[in-house]
Amino acid sequence: MRILKLAVLISGNGTNLQALIDACAAPDFPAEIALVISNRPDAYGLERAEKAGIKAITIDHKSFDDRESFEDSVHEALTEAKVQLVCLAGFMRILTATFVRRWQDRLINIHPSLLPAYKGLNTYERAIEDGVRFAGCTVHYVRPDVDTGPIIIQAAVPVLSDDDPDSLAARILPQEHIIYPEAVCLIASSKARVRGHKVIIDDMPVPSGAYIAPVPKK
Amino acid sequence: MRILKLAVLISGNGTNLQALIDACAAPDFPAEIALVISNRPDAYGLERAEKAGIKAITIDHKSFDDRESFEDSVHEALTEAKVQLVCLAGFMRILTATFVRRWQDRLINIHPSLLPAYKGLNTYERAIEDGVRFAGCTVHYVRPDVDTGPIIIQAAVPVLSDDDPDSLAARILPQEHIIYPEAVCLIASSKARVRGHKVIIDDMPVPSGAYIAPVPKK
Repeated sequence: MRILKLAVLISGNGTNLQALIDACAAPDFPAEIALVISNRPDAYGLERAEKAGIKAITIDHKSFDDRESFEDSVHEALTEAKVQLVCLAGFMRILTATFVRRWQDRLINIHPSLLPAYKGLNTYERAIEDGVRFAGCTVHYVRPDVDTGPIIIQAAVPVLSDDDPDSLAARILPQEHIIYPEAVCLIASSKARVRGHKVIIDDMPVPSGAYIAPVPKK
Repeated sequence: MRILKLAVLISGNGTNLQALIDACAAPDFPAEIALVISNRPDAYGLERAEKAGIKAITIDHKSFDDRESFEDSVHEALTEAKVQLVCLAGFMRILTATFVRRWQDRLINIHPSLLPAYKGLNTYERAIEDGVRFAGCTVHYVRPDVDTGPIIIQAAVPVLSDDDPDSLAARILPQEHIIYPEAVCLIASSKARVRGHKVIIDDMPVPSGAYIAPVPKK
């Protein structure tokens, strides 16, 4: 079995990193984490990686003169580790178009909304404010425009009348931890392919999890 | 039991009208259709109403000099029939702010997308084009800006890799036929109340239907 080499880029707690670490621990999972990079030296995710025996480094954006030299350093570390797919997991730096194009179709992100709704920040607050009945999360390829890239998997959850941002986050986060490894698995097993600005999955999986609508039988 | 008097405004086939007719036929449903208005004399929905013994009239927008006089005529018919809630169901005329404000919080619409995503027309095509994994439909109060009003109920369905607009419509339409009567029932039984630009439902129902995510137990 071909094993895809991943890098996970973080800035903080790293719960999605943990979900990927756990998924990769399964013997039949078609990917492994070769490198974890944090732009902040105090990110707890670094400890998660070390506990799992994964190489984890800090590339502190504050120690660079500009965005380009920071990204060059990241690019160099990724290349050196022979990374094939970069997973952004709570990485709080916006990447330049140059970096994104270098890693075109090899760079994915998870975003806490049902894109194209609620791009950007404060997605839970905005969904609650609007009174929408569904919220969720999206794993997508990264494109230069933030939160616009081809969608790989989404998970939907209900929003309840008495939800606040914390309770909604608590319902969505477990779904993130399901669909991020699923998306990696689809890519690693060559089941997902980018066509234009869509991701086609021939054998469309159900984004699994308790809150997900079942796919109808054909 | 208080029975809410509805009007249903249509322009065509009227499948959502039929869903409301069927719902109102149940002895415990808290609403009845007092009047159906079509702006087109050839709308099949008129026949549906007549078959159900419901008063159905055509108010042809083409026979009026301007939008205001057309809407005055509609308003008069609604008032004369003592209508308490107006349901737009495939009604293909945009209503003026004047009319919408006259019927503020007594005028609802069904839209074939998970608002706020995909306001406007061609929602199925646009969702498929974007490669989103969920689509759906929304019942909402009408506000002067099209497709922006407070959301009462939404239903979500999966989008499959091989969907075209017809197959996606075929998956969403049955959900429309479930949630539109549910929304009417919530309003008629005073369980839904508008607060700001949200609809609060104290005893939040699950938007039912095969594809809907279950609400987690507390």
